[in-house]
Amino acid sequence: MHPNHEPSIINRSHRPVLAVDIGGTKILTAIVSPAGQVMAHCYELTRASEGPRAVIERLFACLDLLISRKNGNTSQFEAIALGTAGPLEQKRGLVTSSPHLPGWRNVPLRDIVYKRYHLDTYMINDAQAAALGEQQLGAGKGTQNLIFLTISTGIGGGIVINGRLFTGHDGSAGEIGHMTVDINGPQCNCGNHGCLEVMASGTAVARDACARLTRGDKSQLIEMVHGDLSKITAKEIQQAAEEGDTLSREVIDRAAFYLGVGLASLVDIFNPEVIVIGGGMSRLGGRLLVPARKVVRQRAFRLPARTVRILRARLGIFSGVQGAAIFALHQQERGEGET
Amino acid sequence: MHPNHEPSIINRSHRPVLAVDIGGTKILTAIVSPAGQVMAHCYELTRASEGPRAVIERLFACLDLLISRKNGNTSQFEAIALGTAGPLEQKRGLVTSSPHLPGWRNVPLRDIVYKRYHLDTYMINDAQAAALGEQQLGAGKGTQNLIFLTISTGIGGGIVINGRLFTGHDGSAGEIGHMTVDINGPQCNCGNHGCLEVMASGTAVARDACARLTRGDKSQLIEMVHGDLSKITAKEIQQAAEEGDTLSREVIDRAAFYLGVGLASLVDIFNPEVIVIGGGMSRLGGRLLVPARKVVRQRAFRLPARTVRILRARLGIFSGVQGAAIFALHQQERGEGET
Repeated sequence: MHPNHEPSIINRSHRPVLAVDIGGTKILTAIVSPAGQVMAHCYELTRASEGPRAVIERLFACLDLLISRKNGNTSQFEAIALGTAGPLEQKRGLVTSSPHLPGWRNVPLRDIVYKRYHLDTYMINDAQAAALGEQQLGAGKGTQNLIFLTISTGIGGGIVINGRLFTGHDGSAGEIGHMTVDINGPQCNCGNHGCLEVMASGTAVARDACARLTRGDKSQLIEMVHGDLSKITAKEIQQAAEEGDTLSREVIDRAAFYLGVGLASLVDIFNPEVIVIGGGMSRLGGRLLVPARKVVRQRAFRLPARTVRILRARLGIFSGVQGAAIFALHQQERGEGET
Repeated sequence: MHPNHEPSIINRSHRPVLAVDIGGTKILTAIVSPAGQVMAHCYELTRASEGPRAVIERLFACLDLLISRKNGNTSQFEAIALGTAGPLEQKRGLVTSSPHLPGWRNVPLRDIVYKRYHLDTYMINDAQAAALGEQQLGAGKGTQNLIFLTISTGIGGGIVINGRLFTGHDGSAGEIGHMTVDINGPQCNCGNHGCLEVMASGTAVARDACARLTRGDKSQLIEMVHGDLSKITAKEIQQAAEEGDTLSREVIDRAAFYLGVGLASLVDIFNPEVIVIGGGMSRLGGRLLVPARKVVRQRAFRLPARTVRILRARLGIFSGVQGAAIFALHQQERGEGET
C-alpha cells in the first residue's frame, strides 16, 4: 500500500500524548494512548473572562496533574497536542484571536507550552482536531476522506484527506462555515453576507425564530422563555420542535435546507466518503440531517451524492483531545521520516 | 522529507507516457516524457457529432501514429493517460455522459483503450488533468496545494493536495463550478440555481450582456454582431471591453465579482498556496483577475487571503496531456509501492 493509505491509527510510538482542548467553556486535558484512547483526563472550566494568563495557568495546573500520574516524568510522553479555539497562525504557533477567548491576541501558546515541558508541541484548531478524531475513531472510522462540520453558535470545520488532516498552506484550511451560499443573505460575524454560518448555525436558527415571533407568529417558544425573546437559543427551539411546535419545526427546516445547499457544494468539490456533523445543533439528529440529506441528493452530482454518507458525530466531548493527539502522532511520524 | 512532499515531478520511470486529451473540439494525443515534456503530438478535430465509435477510431489512429514513432513497440511506453471531458466514473473507467461529446453514455473508454494497447491505462477528467499540469509545470510550479478553475462555457476544476491530484472517493472531486454562491440566482445547466458557473462563466457573461441589451442598454456589441444578439459570446465582450465599451466592462466586472465570491469560499476552505485560472475567460487577464482578487481580499479570512496567489494558467493547449501523463506516472509509482 501507498504510505498515504496505511491505516494511520497504527502509530509507531509506544508513548501516549498529552492532549489539550481549550474552548470558551472548558479546558479538557487528557493522556491519550498511541491508539487514540483517553487513558485519563482532567476537566476544568476555562473562565475565559479572566484573560490568557489565568487560563494558561489553569492549563499548566491540569497538565501538571496528568504528568504527576507518570511520577512527574515528562519523558514518558511522546508530545503535547493543543486543540484550540481559533483562528490560529499554525506555523508560528499563535492564537491570533478568538471570539471564545477574550483578550487573546497573538498569544504564542505553542512556545509557551514548549518552554515549560520541553516536549514537541503541536497546535491545531478545535474543529480540525475533532475532524481527525471522528475520522480515526468516530463516525468516520474506516474512511479515508472526510469532511467534518461543527454546528453550534458558529460553524467550524475540518478536512481529512487520505487519512491525514489537511490543514492547508498556513494551517487554516477547513473554514467551511464562511462559504457564501446566499450572496444577498444576512450579514455574518465575519462581515460577509450569506455565509453558511449565518444561514444554518444555532445562532441563525434563534435569529430566524425571533424574527418570526417579532412579526407576530405564534409559538410555544414565547412561554418557554417567559416572553423574553433574547433567551431563545437553538436548545429551546429543539425542545419546542420535539413537542410539535410548528414555528420551531419550520425554522429548523430552513436551516436544514441551507445546510443541505452548503453540503451539496462540498460534495461536488470533495466527493467525500463521509460528512460528519457535530456541535450542539447535531443533537437535532434526523430532524436536521434527514432534510439536509434530501437537499444534497437533489442538488449535488449524482455519483458523489450517491456515495456520500452524512452522519452525526460520535465522539462527543473527547473528539478534540483524541484528534489533537492523533495529529501530534502523525506529525511525529512525519518528522521521523525527515531525519 | 515525508514521501508526500517529494518533488513529485521526479518520476522513477524512464519511459514516456502516451497521453490523450479528448474534448468537444479536439483530440490531442502526445508522447510525454517522465519529466512532463511533450516530445511529440498529434492534433485532430473531434467531430464529436459523429458519435463515440467514430471518435474512438480517430483516437486509435492518432495513438497508432505516435506509437509508430517508436517502431510500433508499445513496450517503449510506461502507460496511457486519458484526460476526458466528463463526467466520468473513474473507478470503472466510464465516460458516463458529456455535454461536449453527444451520444457518449457509460462508454468504457479505459477498457476499450487497454484492450487495444495492453498498457496500463488511467482516466481523469480534462480539468483535473489541467490542474495537475499547471501545478507541476505551469503557473503553480513549485507549490504543493493548488486549486485550478477552467472558465469557458462552463466552469470546471481540479484540486492538487501535497503535490498529488485529489480525485475524491469516486474520482469526481473538483466540481467547483457548481458551488452555490447565490441561492436565488439564475438556473444552471445542472438544474440548481446560482452556481458559480451560472454567475461567472463565459455563458453567464454573454447572457448578462444580452439581457442588458434587450432592456435597451447601448453598446458597440450590437454592431459587432450585426444586431444578432445570439451571436454574442465572451470573445466579443472581451474585444468590446478592450475598446472601451462600458456595458461590456460592467458585465465582466459582475462576473469577476461572483468569481471573487466563489474564490473567497475556496480560500477559506482550502487555504491554498495558489489558485490558477484557465479556460477561454482567462484571456481577459487582469480585467477579470484584478477585481476578483480584490473581492477575495475583502471576503476571505485575513491569513489565507494574504497567502493565496491568484494566477492565470500558463500551459495552454498542452495542460491536459501533460497533467494526465503526470497523473499516470503518479499512479504507476503508487502501484509499485503496492507490490
